[in-house]
Amino acid sequence: MGTVTTARGVYPVPIFMPVGTRGAVRTLDGADLESVGADIVLANAYHLMLRPGPAVVARLGGLHRFMGWERHLLTDSGGFQIHSLSPEVCDEGVTFTSVYDGSRLRCTPESVVEVQVTLGADVQMALDVCTTLPAADDVVRQGVERTLAWAQRARRHFDRLDEKPEGQALFGIVQGGIDPDLRRESAERTVALGFDGYGVGGLSVGEPRSAMLEALAATVPHLPADKPRYLMGVGDPVGIIEAVALGVDQFDCVAPTRMARHGSVLTSTGRLNLRNAIHADGDGPLDPTCNCITCRRWSRGYLRHLLGVGEPIAWRLLTIHNLTFMSRLMADARSAIAWGRLEALRAEIRARWPDRTGGPSGG
Amino acid sequence: MGTVTTARGVYPVPIFMPVGTRGAVRTLDGADLESVGADIVLANAYHLMLRPGPAVVARLGGLHRFMGWERHLLTDSGGFQIHSLSPEVCDEGVTFTSVYDGSRLRCTPESVVEVQVTLGADVQMALDVCTTLPAADDVVRQGVERTLAWAQRARRHFDRLDEKPEGQALFGIVQGGIDPDLRRESAERTVALGFDGYGVGGLSVGEPRSAMLEALAATVPHLPADKPRYLMGVGDPVGIIEAVALGVDQFDCVAPTRMARHGSVLTSTGRLNLRNAIHADGDGPLDPTCNCITCRRWSRGYLRHLLGVGEPIAWRLLTIHNLTFMSRLMADARSAIAWGRLEALRAEIRARWPDRTGGPSGG
Repeated sequence: MGTVTTARGVYPVPIFMPVGTRGAVRTLDGADLESVGADIVLANAYHLMLRPGPAVVARLGGLHRFMGWERHLLTDSGGFQIHSLSPEVCDEGVTFTSVYDGSRLRCTPESVVEVQVTLGADVQMALDVCTTLPAADDVVRQGVERTLAWAQRARRHFDRLDEKPEGQALFGIVQGGIDPDLRRESAERTVALGFDGYGVGGLSVGEPRSAMLEALAATVPHLPADKPRYLMGVGDPVGIIEAVALGVDQFDCVAPTRMARHGSVLTSTGRLNLRNAIHADGDGPLDPTCNCITCRRWSRGYLRHLLGVGEPIAWRLLTIHNLTFMSRLMADARSAIAWGRLEALRAEIRARWPDRTGGPSGG
Repeated sequence: MGTVTTARGVYPVPIFMPVGTRGAVRTLDGADLESVGADIVLANAYHLMLRPGPAVVARLGGLHRFMGWERHLLTDSGGFQIHSLSPEVCDEGVTFTSVYDGSRLRCTPESVVEVQVTLGADVQMALDVCTTLPAADDVVRQGVERTLAWAQRARRHFDRLDEKPEGQALFGIVQGGIDPDLRRESAERTVALGFDGYGVGGLSVGEPRSAMLEALAATVPHLPADKPRYLMGVGDPVGIIEAVALGVDQFDCVAPTRMARHGSVLTSTGRLNLRNAIHADGDGPLDPTCNCITCRRWSRGYLRHLLGVGEPIAWRLLTIHNLTFMSRLMADARSAIAWGRLEALRAEIRARWPDRTGGPSGG
């Protein structure tokens, strides 16, 4: 589709969204996000609901002003995060224990819509049920049915609210494990509810890449090509390029930022482990083809030193580099699509990132 | 004296040096140091000797290029840091245990000169003996005598070395506890050895401010007015302005950066504890009179949130603010000296920072 238009403007697709869970991409500020070329950032409604709370964000002018970030924002509903807390799920909603103070909290599709309306991002996601894989067929089926019922309630509740951020989009989420039939059914029934875009959730949670791609291939053709199709939680170069080839427009993943903090650097020739002693005397940049502020100013040797002695600035400088790599990767993909050479780019990336462990993993 | 000239250029005095112990001011990069208005940064020869080692720094182009920092650098000898490791001190030098790997290491005045020549900062400090206060008279006297003997050996060794960074300055250090007579004697005998500048060490280590200022008043008049006079480890606004009134040119202290990481913010109206709940909804900047990148873009409420959830970017944004405050304080002091109104500024600062605990403490 080339671009996505929101009330705030336009962002190009396919695109990667850095993850700013608590209202900041870990170790970065808003100026850094501009410098890495980010156009849209993901924040997490579940985390912001707990700290500082949506009312505080609203009183401080909404999420954009709060974060000092003028470009696009998407809030995830937190289905995936809540899921990891072993919640009690029933038809009505989900009950879980706060990681901050141990209190019991309940979320419903309606309450999560309201939280995200109050936060005021450009895109909000419906609450879904994220099923752990592998799982029995009936468990996966139940997750799909609940996700659909919740999507319908989210859609209705959103439409009934009078006060909403101008032009805020609502995306539904497709589930269905790795069963192609269930994925297709989930896609078709979610589309029938009518959303501004579609997340593909519950993938890259430990299943083999081939199974993920098979499920994705069974999903994407059943999503409208004129709405953004967002593969949630995938951020490794090979996973991204394969998904782009299947028609996916949008990605998010904590891996590029988390890897940076552990000294795992994404470069044009593949992954580089900065903790390796070979880099102690490295006088050159992390990647001679990279134009990020880190590569323009500091040597591998200096960055390795900072990482080794635990200086927090190492995490930030490597995060800036890895996110700049992701921006370039997506720009390369957009360019390849425009010039009809996506197949060649796909072959290149597969050659540079020979297996999944060579790049950022999903989840 | 107004300015200090080195091979690299000129820096104005009185000046505050941010502390970049391991080759980085904690949480900041070189571009941040420019944005806070730093003109000279302190690094620690003792720490850099252990990690990554002076040879690595030299192979990567010397400390300036290593850090990506083109302005002035001073390396401290590490006398104060080594002292905190309960070392064995004898006439020859000092033996201590590495905090990194537990190995036993020895430093002599000569070896520390060589490490600092290899690092290549613009100013290096002679190795001194830093005596814990309170201490018996004979212990303080012994510290003074050893510091003088080591200063002489450092001076000689430095002068004999053929290969030195162009124009590198060597500063001696005055000791003597809080005994005015011993301070004067230490100053006179250190000056007799002939250095490019003079550190005043062993103060702000727990003694009352009045005792510190008395010792300082007994020292500074015996140091040449045309060489930089550097009060080591003092960085609270009142301590600085009192010392400036006594003729001190140069300061360093970890307090403004350490305080920032704990949410203690220096403002034009005094200290602000950002963890206080009153700031949760704070829509304004940390200090409405401040022009730092943090105050220009983010609210107290956002910064308090980041601090509360442990986002590392909070530490950086608050550090940028506190160091900008220190730069402004020193610029105010220089301006007050130039316009003959230092006494008025001193009264203002004493009113805003009513007691020592209200500002960054030394040490």
